[in-house]
Amino acid sequence: MTIETRRQASALDNLDELAPLRAAFDLPEGVIYLDGNSLGALPFATGERVSNVVSAEWGRDLVKSWNSAGWMNLPKTVGARIAALIGADADEVVATDSTSVNLFKVVAAAARMRSGRHKIISEPGNFPTDLYMLEGLTSLLPNLELIILPRGEIAGAIDDNTAAIVLTHVHYVTAEMFDMKAMTKAAHAVGALAIWDLSHSAGAVEVNLGDAKADFAVGCGYKYLNGGPGAPAFVYVAKRHHGVAVQPLSGWHGHKRPFDFIDAYEAASGVDQFLCGTPGIIGMAALDESLKIFDRTSMKALRAKSVALCKLFIELVERDCAGYGLSLVGLRDMDVRGSHVSFRHSHGYEVMKALIHAGVIGDFRAPDHIRFGFTPLYVGFADVWDAVQCLKGILQEETYKDPEFAVRDAVT
Amino acid sequence: MTIETRRQASALDNLDELAPLRAAFDLPEGVIYLDGNSLGALPFATGERVSNVVSAEWGRDLVKSWNSAGWMNLPKTVGARIAALIGADADEVVATDSTSVNLFKVVAAAARMRSGRHKIISEPGNFPTDLYMLEGLTSLLPNLELIILPRGEIAGAIDDNTAAIVLTHVHYVTAEMFDMKAMTKAAHAVGALAIWDLSHSAGAVEVNLGDAKADFAVGCGYKYLNGGPGAPAFVYVAKRHHGVAVQPLSGWHGHKRPFDFIDAYEAASGVDQFLCGTPGIIGMAALDESLKIFDRTSMKALRAKSVALCKLFIELVERDCAGYGLSLVGLRDMDVRGSHVSFRHSHGYEVMKALIHAGVIGDFRAPDHIRFGFTPLYVGFADVWDAVQCLKGILQEETYKDPEFAVRDAVT
Repeated sequence: MTIETRRQASALDNLDELAPLRAAFDLPEGVIYLDGNSLGALPFATGERVSNVVSAEWGRDLVKSWNSAGWMNLPKTVGARIAALIGADADEVVATDSTSVNLFKVVAAAARMRSGRHKIISEPGNFPTDLYMLEGLTSLLPNLELIILPRGEIAGAIDDNTAAIVLTHVHYVTAEMFDMKAMTKAAHAVGALAIWDLSHSAGAVEVNLGDAKADFAVGCGYKYLNGGPGAPAFVYVAKRHHGVAVQPLSGWHGHKRPFDFIDAYEAASGVDQFLCGTPGIIGMAALDESLKIFDRTSMKALRAKSVALCKLFIELVERDCAGYGLSLVGLRDMDVRGSHVSFRHSHGYEVMKALIHAGVIGDFRAPDHIRFGFTPLYVGFADVWDAVQCLKGILQEETYKDPEFAVRDAVT
Repeated sequence: MTIETRRQASALDNLDELAPLRAAFDLPEGVIYLDGNSLGALPFATGERVSNVVSAEWGRDLVKSWNSAGWMNLPKTVGARIAALIGADADEVVATDSTSVNLFKVVAAAARMRSGRHKIISEPGNFPTDLYMLEGLTSLLPNLELIILPRGEIAGAIDDNTAAIVLTHVHYVTAEMFDMKAMTKAAHAVGALAIWDLSHSAGAVEVNLGDAKADFAVGCGYKYLNGGPGAPAFVYVAKRHHGVAVQPLSGWHGHKRPFDFIDAYEAASGVDQFLCGTPGIIGMAALDESLKIFDRTSMKALRAKSVALCKLFIELVERDCAGYGLSLVGLRDMDVRGSHVSFRHSHGYEVMKALIHAGVIGDFRAPDHIRFGFTPLYVGFADVWDAVQCLKGILQEETYKDPEFAVRDAVT
């Protein structure tokens, strides 16, 4: 069906079984928020939970809350919630640290498990922090080498000197999605391990780590999981590696008995060995609360809506904004795309600033990409219509040429 | 002066210029909180700040707050506040990650700076996570060896094969305090580096990293700094090492231009190279707000009160609880003690549970230590009096023998 009018787009919202979930989010009036792939929106319940954690759990019950409020178990509690969204068992995931730190842990653990092998393979244009962390680890371990290969060459390059491949499942700009199962199989065929960054996947697309036989995964809590700015990240370790995979950031929360206060490290036997220092409880509780919204739907339903939103957006932009210098980034086939869409434009930075000024919030990624995320929990079809009409107006009237939109922000 | 009555203790509170600061804290009625060395109490302003960060900055302004609310700069803003408390320059400290992760960073950086040397020296009974992290790092780097030596033997053991000493300034149980300047000098004399864990020092005792010529330091945000459960930690890098010391957890926030999204890591030139992944903003903002209380006093004044509180506590316990099997841990001389006091008791666990039940909150540290922290911002002299009388009653009446107090909690 082609959408010709806003009324038709609204009709899709009326048919959308997920539409009521938007009421769970405290989104500002007059804003179309298409940046949930960068920072997810605030659920009402999360605001209340944080307030309770601070005033009641911290303020009133103080240090007792480590036991009475379940603070000590939160990394596992939250991990179990995330596990349900990524095809993992509840005891295969913990929430902890940042995605960057967790990537270091799992790649170091993998390198130790394959200590005779020297290569870690990733791709150019992977999310920068992943490459930076790999650079850091390989600079520390002289026997390990980081090999950066274009996507199409990776499967063929995995050899018996490869310890692990480290790939981001959904690309942060192009939204292109790896075939996780096939790539993991290619790694395993020669005894290498497969490590996946799910930052742009968790809560956005259907992921089945178990079915794909993934070895390790990491991901972000503040994008589609709506955990709040800088929310704790997560780490997945396949059960078959528990007790075998040991990561070197061996802080006390990964100890078998942290409150024995003994001098010697004894690795916890489960995924909790991938914990490290004391977890940030306020942020962890926020993530815990935000994840409860996923209990009200399924990743299958969310993915179906996400695909429909992305398809409609691409279709409307290419139809209504034709001739204004936009070009779609990545493939058109939604089977191999995540839940965001990027277009290139020679004045991408200014166009995005003009959109934000008009209340359509996406973001910009260097050098010239404007990026729009479609979080099916709170974005609707009429939002897509309105965003495209806004973009069309900005391009048509060239309002993006206003010098104020060229002023660069620290964070883009 | 010997304190004979509660009235005399109260008189000390009336004379205490810091006493009004207690009103800044949202402490529960009927509780004497002597565990600020484990989890600092909640300042009223911090509750309000967190609420604003969540509802206004995250909820209303969404991703724009990375610029408009200064989120991107928070690690430096908070670092500068902490710097003022530990004798560092504002640009020598950032708040980030956990103490454990930060220790890994600085020791790895130090090992690289002294790459010809093989020893990292610490002491037995150091806070466990410090030893565990050192074990993790040395297991990763085969050329590096962890040497654990009793306190008295360390200075003599530092040799030209020593890369660094890694010590906790104030011991988490005994409260014994190293002479930071002398130990650092001993390390420097043979070309080794000195790394200090200030977790039980920052906000509790006077620290002057600059005067001591310390090379690196790390510390905790949730103890005397009152940043909330699992608050971000901090890391100090002496300015002379900026650009020279490079740590391997090279996440994007330590990149020179993180938003250029280039594939190659380029280390930021300042202490911000010690940042890693995306910081947890809610917890970071809480710490930022809590630190503002320190603007209303000085570490000199806080230390003077802390010494007076600890002295009074030791004196009253030893006088009023004599004969009940308590023995002071560590030296009596406050010049070499931090701001907490531990006593051993064969039923320490049960005694502490009985105290907590009665509203006097300290904590227990294996195997038999009951530990009391004296945060001069909100603990008063009458609190000390009342706590000791409560302890006396429990010991005298043996109420700690109630079986309910023997039930072990997950966190002690």
